[in-house]
Amino acid sequence: MDSQVTDDYLQQYMPGDICFGCGHSNADGLQIKSYWQGEDCVCVWQPEPKHQGWPDITCGGIIATLIDCHCMSTAMVTAIRNENRAMGSEPHYRFATGTLNIKYLKPTAIAKPVTLRAKVTDIKDVRKYTLHCDVFAEGVRTVEAEVIAFLVFRG
Amino acid sequence: MDSQVTDDYLQQYMPGDICFGCGHSNADGLQIKSYWQGEDCVCVWQPEPKHQGWPDITCGGIIATLIDCHCMSTAMVTAIRNENRAMGSEPHYRFATGTLNIKYLKPTAIAKPVTLRAKVTDIKDVRKYTLHCDVFAEGVRTVEAEVIAFLVFRG
Repeated sequence: MDSQVTDDYLQQYMPGDICFGCGHSNADGLQIKSYWQGEDCVCVWQPEPKHQGWPDITCGGIIATLIDCHCMSTAMVTAIRNENRAMGSEPHYRFATGTLNIKYLKPTAIAKPVTLRAKVTDIKDVRKYTLHCDVFAEGVRTVEAEVIAFLVFRG
Repeated sequence: MDSQVTDDYLQQYMPGDICFGCGHSNADGLQIKSYWQGEDCVCVWQPEPKHQGWPDITCGGIIATLIDCHCMSTAMVTAIRNENRAMGSEPHYRFATGTLNIKYLKPTAIAKPVTLRAKVTDIKDVRKYTLHCDVFAEGVRTVEAEVIAFLVFRG
C-alpha cells in the first residue's frame, strides 16, 4: 500500500504543532506531510505562487524550511523505529535543528510538487542525529542537504 | 544619519521582485529590508506569530530565509560598492544562492525584532561570493551562517 494515500503522516503525531513549516495547527504555514516509505522518509509538497524566489522558481528559503522540518520528522520516526515502537507510543520524541548545510544544485521549478527524501546517516551520543536529504523537482535532484538534529524532548 | 530610518533599503533596487523572502512585490512574503551600514549590511525584521517554530521561538526555516535573502542583497551592494558605483546605476546585479551553511546556536525569540549582520568575506572568479551572517535576538547571537552566492545576472 502506498502510504502517501493514507492519512498516517508523521506530523499528526505532533498534535498542536504551530511550526511554520510542519505545524498542522498553523493555518498560514506550509503544513508538510512526511511519510516513512521503505528505507527513507518522503514528503511531497506543492508550492504556491507566493513561495517563489525567482519567477517560476521556488524560493531557496522555503526549500530550506521544507528540508529542516522534514528532517526533524525523519529523525523522530527513525528514533521510534529503532526502538521497535509504533508511532504514537510513549515516550514521544521531538528534535531541534543544530545545523543545516544546503547545496542548491539547480533551480527548483514551482509548477509541480517537489519531493523530499531523507534518512538518518549517523547517530552519536544518543541525542545527535545526522541526516541526508535530497530534493527533486520533476524527477531531477535540485538540492541536497546534510542536517544535524538533536533530540530535545522525551515525554 | 541612521540609514535604518530612511527609505533607502537595498530591496528597492530590485523592482518587481516577487521573492518570498525579499520581494516587496510579494504581499504574502517576509519583505525584508537590508541596509548598508558602515562595514556590513544590516537587516532588522519583526517576526509574526505565524512564523513560530516552537512556541515563542522563530522557525528555523524562516531564519534560513532571512539569512539567504539578506546575504544576496549584501553580495549585490558589495559588488556595486567595489566598483565605486551608486545603487541603481547600471549594470544591475543579481545573486543566487549556491550554499547555505547555518548553525543554530540558541533559540531565537519571536517577541522582538531580529537583527541580521552580513558581510562578504571572499570573492573568487568574479562570480563566487562567500559571506558570513550572524543573527541576533535581544542582543544575543543566536544563529551564524556561511553562505555562497553566485552573480547570475548583469543587466
